[in-house]
Amino acid sequence: MRILGIDPGLATLGWGIIRALPDKARFVACGTIQTQPDTPFPQRLAQIDEQIASLLDLYQPDAIVFEQLFFAKNVTTAFTVGAARGVAVARCAKYTEALYEYTPMQIKQAVVGYGKADKLQVQQMVKMLLSLPAYPKPDDAADAVAAALTHFNSGRFGQEHIMK
Amino acid sequence: MRILGIDPGLATLGWGIIRALPDKARFVACGTIQTQPDTPFPQRLAQIDEQIASLLDLYQPDAIVFEQLFFAKNVTTAFTVGAARGVAVARCAKYTEALYEYTPMQIKQAVVGYGKADKLQVQQMVKMLLSLPAYPKPDDAADAVAAALTHFNSGRFGQEHIMK
Repeated sequence: MRILGIDPGLATLGWGIIRALPDKARFVACGTIQTQPDTPFPQRLAQIDEQIASLLDLYQPDAIVFEQLFFAKNVTTAFTVGAARGVAVARCAKYTEALYEYTPMQIKQAVVGYGKADKLQVQQMVKMLLSLPAYPKPDDAADAVAAALTHFNSGRFGQEHIMK
Repeated sequence: MRILGIDPGLATLGWGIIRALPDKARFVACGTIQTQPDTPFPQRLAQIDEQIASLLDLYQPDAIVFEQLFFAKNVTTAFTVGAARGVAVARCAKYTEALYEYTPMQIKQAVVGYGKADKLQVQQMVKMLLSLPAYPKPDDAADAVAAALTHFNSGRFGQEHIMK
């Protein structure tokens, strides 16, 4: 079973894929989808849609996990970031119903065992849990891998479907 | 030339199509795309995507005009409404680069001649400008027609591309 984690964003969307074995998770791949500020907004959204479609086609994940957004500087930023997330969610919804979402605190709790862990602690645990030679880079990709690991570990605290 | 107006929303997305003749605009069609609160959020977004695709296929508009969102009760609502708008914008961006957006005030100014006009005044002017036997219904569809009319009249105050 392959799990795709997504840390949504307009300029940088992090993604990470793990393979769930009976007793442990294996790292498969991670990266980012980046769009440029000088590209018109509608084309940036279309690029995200197309690149998510390519990821799904390439890795054929069995479950997809989003890190939940709930911070934005203001309503305008929330519209913009929400749009990028919405495009990714809609594309994934056409591919599978196995869509999940965890808050940053749930992800830290699942990966580090402490809901207020910092970024470095998350990266260290991701590296250790997946026996990686180095931290996954960049941060957004590491966060996406952590979201996927959270779902792998979700038996511990239940699965959270995307609700809104 | 056909102009598609869109008043974005998650539960109800209004749409309206007009045909631009050299001297006036003709009404073609209007309606809404509705999604149900008890449908999972990702499927609601996928439904919007698919129904926008069907509209584009059916009416083949030459320009697409969005009413700009800028009010939301809070950041969570903005994420949700922004997602619905983002899905519609991305789908339209794959169809054409001729995407425009006007604020509610610009639409009222263009259609009624007064930026603080109320909903009824907008509906009366839409009815009159398009020689309709009745107001377009529901409100969201009428707003979408007004957005399309705004673009038809945009020579008066310039065209506004979607910027974010």
